[in-house]
Amino acid sequence: MKFPAPVTLDWMANLIDAEVLGNSTITPTGINEIHKVETGDIVFVDHPKYYNTCLQSAASVIIINSKDVTIPNGKALLYTADPFEAYLKIVDYFKPFTPSTKAISETAVIGEGSVVMPNCYIGNRVIIGNNTIIHPNVTIGDDCIIGNNVVIQAGTVIGSDAFYYNTKKNRQVWFKRMKSCGHVVIEDNVEIGAGCTIDRGVTAETRIGSGTIIDNQVHIGHDTKVGKNCLFAAQVGIAGAVVIEDGVTLWGQVGVSKTLTIGKDAVVLAQGGVPSDLEGNKVYWGTPTQEASIKRRELVWIKRIPELWKKVMEANS
Amino acid sequence: MKFPAPVTLDWMANLIDAEVLGNSTITPTGINEIHKVETGDIVFVDHPKYYNTCLQSAASVIIINSKDVTIPNGKALLYTADPFEAYLKIVDYFKPFTPSTKAISETAVIGEGSVVMPNCYIGNRVIIGNNTIIHPNVTIGDDCIIGNNVVIQAGTVIGSDAFYYNTKKNRQVWFKRMKSCGHVVIEDNVEIGAGCTIDRGVTAETRIGSGTIIDNQVHIGHDTKVGKNCLFAAQVGIAGAVVIEDGVTLWGQVGVSKTLTIGKDAVVLAQGGVPSDLEGNKVYWGTPTQEASIKRRELVWIKRIPELWKKVMEANS
Amino acid sequence: MKFPAPVTLDWMANLIDAEVLGNSTITPTGINEIHKVETGDIVFVDHPKYYNTCLQSAASVIIINSKDVTIPNGKALLYTADPFEAYLKIVDYFKPFTPSTKAISETAVIGEGSVVMPNCYIGNRVIIGNNTIIHPNVTIGDDCIIGNNVVIQAGTVIGSDAFYYNTKKNRQVWFKRMKSCGHVVIEDNVEIGAGCTIDRGVTAETRIGSGTIIDNQVHIGHDTKVGKNCLFAAQVGIAGAVVIEDGVTLWGQVGVSKTLTIGKDAVVLAQGGVPSDLEGNKVYWGTPTQEASIKRRELVWIKRIPELWKKVMEANS
Repeated sequence: MKFPAPVTLDWMANLIDAEVLGNSTITPTGINEIHKVETGDIVFVDHPKYYNTCLQSAASVIIINSKDVTIPNGKALLYTADPFEAYLKIVDYFKPFTPSTKAISETAVIGEGSVVMPNCYIGNRVIIGNNTIIHPNVTIGDDCIIGNNVVIQAGTVIGSDAFYYNTKKNRQVWFKRMKSCGHVVIEDNVEIGAGCTIDRGVTAETRIGSGTIIDNQVHIGHDTKVGKNCLFAAQVGIAGAVVIEDGVTLWGQVGVSKTLTIGKDAVVLAQGGVPSDLEGNKVYWGTPTQEASIKRRELVWIKRIPELWKKVMEANS
Repeated sequence: MKFPAPVTLDWMANLIDAEVLGNSTITPTGINEIHKVETGDIVFVDHPKYYNTCLQSAASVIIINSKDVTIPNGKALLYTADPFEAYLKIVDYFKPFTPSTKAISETAVIGEGSVVMPNCYIGNRVIIGNNTIIHPNVTIGDDCIIGNNVVIQAGTVIGSDAFYYNTKKNRQVWFKRMKSCGHVVIEDNVEIGAGCTIDRGVTAETRIGSGTIIDNQVHIGHDTKVGKNCLFAAQVGIAGAVVIEDGVTLWGQVGVSKTLTIGKDAVVLAQGGVPSDLEGNKVYWGTPTQEASIKRRELVWIKRIPELWKKVMEANS
Repeated sequence: MKFPAPVTLDWMANLIDAEVLGNSTITPTGINEIHKVETGDIVFVDHPKYYNTCLQSAASVIIINSKDVTIPNGKALLYTADPFEAYLKIVDYFKPFTPSTKAISETAVIGEGSVVMPNCYIGNRVIIGNNTIIHPNVTIGDDCIIGNNVVIQAGTVIGSDAFYYNTKKNRQVWFKRMKSCGHVVIEDNVEIGAGCTIDRGVTAETRIGSGTIIDNQVHIGHDTKVGKNCLFAAQVGIAGAVVIEDGVTLWGQVGVSKTLTIGKDAVVLAQGGVPSDLEGNKVYWGTPTQEASIKRRELVWIKRIPELWKKVMEANS
């Protein structure tokens, strides 16, 4: 999330009740979580395990619960006992939860030739392009951007909050949601089926590339970036912060784990489970996915175990 | 389901056109199906295979289609030719289907600080606690109870009817639904994603324990009891009458079969299929689930079959 | 799709800017895609690979992008450079997209004793029988037909458009949707859970046979024909143009590939993946599905590989 304008560090320190260390002249331009952080951004970290990743990231300002770290040249720290609460305070300040009381927010913009069917909810500051059809009972959350010639079928939800939590098993409530201040971008000529859910970015964006087609009941997690002309069959599930390059095909019920990359024009056959990066231009199958030809040979080998057993018994007798 | 007040057996026998046998002084206080039956309850049974289970259960009164059984001490029978139809008659009497014509029923109670976004349906006698957010296009069926600080994202359905049928393959319509008269309880601090479905109890309750977080497109069956601080990733499916203890993690697309127990702090990895009870504090994988370490070793062994084959061929030559 | 009345070939040729070849006296009565084409119908084909299938099909008229074919006796061709665009033009002419601006279209017919709960969308020319309950937030698209004594639970979508595209990877947008002009028929006594999606036929119908029961979050593709008294558990996914005969049981999260047949009374156990035809009256399991008894034996054999390895090592030492 970018702020409406750069802010001074003193103002920010005051907002979150923090102490400024390092380069106090920086005027941060936004806030992002570590996967999406850019120069000018604030990031936060509350566990020593991740201190270095955050200090060495593109972030200009690090909200942190320790003074006992080396501040990289030119950067600043905002020291506070609870960086996670500080993050929530900043998000609440810039993106307070303001439910539209109308089904279609007055701040939403709907392009020429576009149709929004009955019983849809279109949130605050949503932008819908031209010649786009939003079928009934669709929900589009605040700040999402929908392109031209897009089709979104009935019951689909665009811009649900990210499933992304601060987890501490030593408190009564283990999981506290990192409030999402990101959004979803659906590019031109995308078609999305019925009953799908596409989560918004935690602090940045979830993006579906132009010309991609998505069947019913597909789930796409926060901050995932889907390329152009991809095809996802029904009931595919994709976790958060995944990169799916152009022309990828995922057949029915495929599951994709988080923060991995699937290369250009790769194909994953039905019910495959993708645990880590896949090279492009190949066909995969199984849980965990292997190249489909290897997986098929394995299934043949499994069928030969009884024969093998018999041979061994004969040889040993 | 408990009745508003205890009823006499004679009144009940008259309602369902049954004959009272045994202790006619009992005043039953409710009706429940066999998995959930408590002292004071009526239960019904129409197949000799289950006569004994029902007679020996906590039920005080058994609706049954045979007189040729031994009535346990202090209990009563309601003898009738079709116990299933009698069950339906009782449920229809105490919980007649009364669709609210308004999107938010006038008998629903919504707590302070809670927000119900546009296009939601809130059924009769629903209770929603304080500081809870119900996103757009959510459906909450009759009699469900939602706690404080709960989040329910768009398009989710709480309190759909149980998938629970009386099956007889010798009639034209094989399946007749056991009308649900149960409900759903969502405890405090629970967060539920978009496009989820949580069925009500058939006669009792489906319960989601406090602090549990649920991603998008998760299905939870009737009468399932989920503990505190559990985490269910997207597209998990849990059948009916399951017990999931505190702190359990189910990763994406895991399937859980009915009437089993998953122990405290167990973890099931993505796409696992759970056919029977799992001990707590362990990590599981595969269909059917095994401990993940065993499953991983098996995958390595499968890869060694060709090598094994070669060794046997060499030895035999 | 049948036309309101037979049309002359000249009129049709003029509509799509085509040249008539062969028997110009035919008056086509409808248009269908190749899987569903009947005598009197127009079909279209734009790839030489499928020329023969279409020419030899039941179609009376073939829209085609070549004159260099043998016209079967009594049939006619409509020659045009882009048969796919011609198809779209015909569908747009006879079934223009006309979104109802009201949540329940004035052309919808709802039978006696039926209840449509709040926040539903009922499209143009929908017919709903008697004593049917449509729960909240359901979407029923244009021209769908719902029988008597049907239950459709909350959030379900009936009649979403088919996931069926004209694919050409040498143009900027690879996928162009074949506009659906088909519909869905739900026969009597069918019960459909919450959060399901049932696509309409591309040009013909998707049909759910009487007495079939469907749990939550089930997806059924276009032109699939489901028999009577089937049972589909939660999160089952069925692709397009499948035939499922009477009495079939699919347990949770089963996936079924396209254009195959599952025989009468077959059972597929949870998470099975069906890649091709299954004979009736058997129990199947696994991905790809095998008879369950064979699959179970395989799992036992896999567990014996280490023992086998040991035997071979001992014999070779």
